[in-house]
Amino acid sequence: MTDLNQKTSVRILTTGGTIEKSYCESEGTLKNRASIIREGLISSLRLPYTHLELESILNKDSLEMDNSDRDQICAAIARTAEKGDPIVILHGTDTMSVTAEYCFDKMGTPAVPVVFTGAMRPMGFIDSDARQNVTEALLAARLLSPGFYIAFHNRVFAIPGARKNLETGTFEAV
Amino acid sequence: MTDLNQKTSVRILTTGGTIEKSYCESEGTLKNRASIIREGLISSLRLPYTHLELESILNKDSLEMDNSDRDQICAAIARTAEKGDPIVILHGTDTMSVTAEYCFDKMGTPAVPVVFTGAMRPMGFIDSDARQNVTEALLAARLLSPGFYIAFHNRVFAIPGARKNLETGTFEAV
Amino acid sequence: MTDLNQKTSVRILTTGGTIEKSYCESEGTLKNRASIIREGLISSLRLPYTHLELESILNKDSLEMDNSDRDQICAAIARTAEKGDPIVILHGTDTMSVTAEYCFDKMGTPAVPVVFTGAMRPMGFIDSDARQNVTEALLAARLLSPGFYIAFHNRVFAIPGARKNLETGTFEAV
Amino acid sequence: MTDLNQKTSVRILTTGGTIEKSYCESEGTLKNRASIIREGLISSLRLPYTHLELESILNKDSLEMDNSDRDQICAAIARTAEKGDPIVILHGTDTMSVTAEYCFDKMGTPAVPVVFTGAMRPMGFIDSDARQNVTEALLAARLLSPGFYIAFHNRVFAIPGARKNLETGTFEAV
Repeated sequence: MTDLNQKTSVRILTTGGTIEKSYCESEGTLKNRASIIREGLISSLRLPYTHLELESILNKDSLEMDNSDRDQICAAIARTAEKGDPIVILHGTDTMSVTAEYCFDKMGTPAVPVVFTGAMRPMGFIDSDARQNVTEALLAARLLSPGFYIAFHNRVFAIPGARKNLETGTFEAV
Repeated sequence: MTDLNQKTSVRILTTGGTIEKSYCESEGTLKNRASIIREGLISSLRLPYTHLELESILNKDSLEMDNSDRDQICAAIARTAEKGDPIVILHGTDTMSVTAEYCFDKMGTPAVPVVFTGAMRPMGFIDSDARQNVTEALLAARLLSPGFYIAFHNRVFAIPGARKNLETGTFEAV
Repeated sequence: MTDLNQKTSVRILTTGGTIEKSYCESEGTLKNRASIIREGLISSLRLPYTHLELESILNKDSLEMDNSDRDQICAAIARTAEKGDPIVILHGTDTMSVTAEYCFDKMGTPAVPVVFTGAMRPMGFIDSDARQNVTEALLAARLLSPGFYIAFHNRVFAIPGARKNLETGTFEAV
Repeated sequence: MTDLNQKTSVRILTTGGTIEKSYCESEGTLKNRASIIREGLISSLRLPYTHLELESILNKDSLEMDNSDRDQICAAIARTAEKGDPIVILHGTDTMSVTAEYCFDKMGTPAVPVVFTGAMRPMGFIDSDARQNVTEALLAARLLSPGFYIAFHNRVFAIPGARKNLETGTFEAV
């Protein structure tokens, strides 16, 4: 008999982006350093039946990413998808849809759901949208069929099919 | 041409439960009074393409609910489902699965997704799970097909099929 | 030569009160259990040159305190004051001024500043005044001359001379 | 008869500094823009008997301040002190003691307490020390005699007599 309550694994790949920018008090700077999502966000979610595996791929502002970075992300997705678990990818919003489409063009439909998310405001801020977006991405990763997606601000977009709207600060369908 | 970015409506019905218990400083009591989810939680979510309609049905600890209360909830669901929008129901965790199954037994499969959620800790607490659960329920309501569900702690259960585990403080599949 | 930057000690005595009421998820109750101020509040203050010693005397709603409890508090103050460090006392607001005056009547002016504080809303709530009041009491304890005081909502009252105003939910001078 | 419970005024002058740096989502930058202390911090303090008057003098990182800026701050202090109320000044930490000493050298002992404070981490961050420092400064302003001071991390320093320690990220006595 299947144990309906066994832990399900979700794999999180981090690439940097606004969501993971952290503040250094001695420098007075806000930028991508090491991944902070485990202590800064995951630790305060309740995930009793979810086993999370985190892997840090890059720590970059997505405006600074080039195709070599995107190839690295594709390689990480391909390697991680072999484990058979859904994947959530933290990524800067500015080129999130570019990377997601790049992966789709190169890889086609992956073997598992691959859900990109990020935030308009770094997760350390009181009024950040990081917690909301990560919560959504983690749930979407469990509900969706294999494919590339963006989860953001209570919406899920199949890729291709989304772009950031710079004026409204959210994603919209195209 | 369809506007892919038009606002989608979700209707929230509140019935009380731990999630909506609020603290009265002059009385020193924590209990269900008026619904507080709009100012206490919804106002800090980013929902640029989601139009929320809130309706307060009851303000009860779910241990105090009887079948007359559940009939009232069923009636509200039936009336609300006619609008065609997904429904999220805030409910105490102690009898959430009882109410959800009662509605399922009485109504069968509804015309829209009906997602119950709540919290182990009232939404006013720093370490409440209310924000996580409501975020999940709002997303699940947009992704799921018509039916009764419970969304809680990064899991979605079809009803019947879930019960609260008093020891672990979460829901599990049955 | 005196080291102006040596750590100064402040001793915190806890007696319960609203400020330290904690929520039990399995019981669904909010009440005084063990002291929670170290992890729930002190750990997030920056006190690089302050050494805090915490001692739990009682865990009671102050409406349930009697003179036997107050004698115990007096004894703890007397014993602690011998160390020569300022004292902060966490106490329920309802009889805070009663206890402070009881101590003053029994002990006269103590050898060190003894600053009572508490909160209208338990420290676990997002909008609690506990952090503000404790921050004020810890600073007042370093600035004031020996005596009994209440620090609350940006004011310091010498005892006797203060009472709780039930309507406004704060202390006022008498 | 004196009304012991009349509101006492405290005047806050803002000059910028880390404490008031705010994040712009469209630019992705963290810097001094307009003063944010009223909505970002003051609004969540309980100050039932304190009347605050805020005035924005400058919006600068304190590393970019020159003596012309400091003259402007001195002029604002002189003008404001005439009202007879204690003054709190928000200022960057890097040159806070420089400005405070500059004012002391130019003005001598002012007619009211003038308490400088700021933060190591901008007030919008979850783990900012801004709330603690402002709470301390507002209380110190009510307790201290006329003079220049720095209130920071549970300590109050008379000026001259303090400097920032870059390694430990706090102020120390000199």
